[in-house]
Amino acid sequence: MNLPKPIKNLIDSFERLPGIGPKTAQRLTFYLLHVPQEALDEFGEALKNLKKDTVTCSVCFNVAEADPCPICADQKRDHAVICVVEQPLDILALEKTGKYKGVYHVLGGAISPLNNIEPDELKIKELLDRVKEQESGRVEEIILATNPNMEGEATAMFITNEIKKLPARHASQGEAGRRINELRITRLGQGLPTGGDLEYADEVTLQRALEGRREY
Amino acid sequence: MNLPKPIKNLIDSFERLPGIGPKTAQRLTFYLLHVPQEALDEFGEALKNLKKDTVTCSVCFNVAEADPCPICADQKRDHAVICVVEQPLDILALEKTGKYKGVYHVLGGAISPLNNIEPDELKIKELLDRVKEQESGRVEEIILATNPNMEGEATAMFITNEIKKLPARHASQGEAGRRINELRITRLGQGLPTGGDLEYADEVTLQRALEGRREY
Repeated sequence: MNLPKPIKNLIDSFERLPGIGPKTAQRLTFYLLHVPQEALDEFGEALKNLKKDTVTCSVCFNVAEADPCPICADQKRDHAVICVVEQPLDILALEKTGKYKGVYHVLGGAISPLNNIEPDELKIKELLDRVKEQESGRVEEIILATNPNMEGEATAMFITNEIKKLPARHASQGEAGRRINELRITRLGQGLPTGGDLEYADEVTLQRALEGRREY
Repeated sequence: MNLPKPIKNLIDSFERLPGIGPKTAQRLTFYLLHVPQEALDEFGEALKNLKKDTVTCSVCFNVAEADPCPICADQKRDHAVICVVEQPLDILALEKTGKYKGVYHVLGGAISPLNNIEPDELKIKELLDRVKEQESGRVEEIILATNPNMEGEATAMFITNEIKKLPARHASQGEAGRRINELRITRLGQGLPTGGDLEYADEVTLQRALEGRREY
């Protein structure tokens, strides 16, 4: 049976999305046949305008409507603390906590030789520039919030080494002898996720939880 | 953090789809930020044109580009056998077998008092008309291919009763004394799915498999 072309087109478009297989693509398409035309138009417009109406922030490489993005432009936030994440979605997750008041830096991925993602393809050089820069030379802490998996750990390690290679910052513009090695480099805490089950935790997570135990 | 409006709009549209939660909607939207604009335009157009370029076949209520649909218009198919399905997607699945040469009838769902779906909302009356009609009075078999779940079974039973209530068809237009009760009403075979595992089969499926056992 040849599917009607408009249906086939939409199934094809859905199938190209990650995690959407042929069956789900079919199901979504046939579901949309019962949706009012206005909702379809709205969905279609949202897709077409997604990239037209957004820019990448030239400071932190987050996706935003303006450059610099609202977070980088916000003078109430602590620009001396930079949280380094892999993707813009990670910022969303961290912002939801409501506890972080620093700024961000989006790498655009993690180092992954298997997927041909080399350090050059990530915004690591741009991060080092932010650390080096004299005006924003106030950077006091880099929080490496890459994912707690192999690629994320490798990226965190690579960035740490690169920062350590930077020439020591000397006292300048009135600042008293701050050196680059005074810069704190931290990594997000690892351990048991809240609501998790000790019984089902893998050995690495449990090991990290033991290492990261705190006074109660 | 306020998400940029174009991103929020698309997340909202994705979230309205069945089986797509907030996390998946976010993931899909941020994935699409890396897709070329042409692909987004194509996807958007496919959505907008989905309903504009399709019609419902007035005979079998399948979704198609023309009315009647290619299956109903195909004179090589056996119009004396009607396979009754819940949704157009079911036709797709049956056509993939390549073994069915009859025609179809799409009910548009199954009777489900819990979801407020009454028989009147399904194309049951239209099915009875097809069975009654003098010209297509040749209907010899109705295959009830509704889903093998409670709603599907109830719908199959309801349709069977309705067909049995129809007045007996008398010999007319040269046909020799065919009566409505000569019409075969069948249901798709039930049992173990191919590739399945006896160990994991539920008791009802196993019971059906025993009932439907065949000489080997």
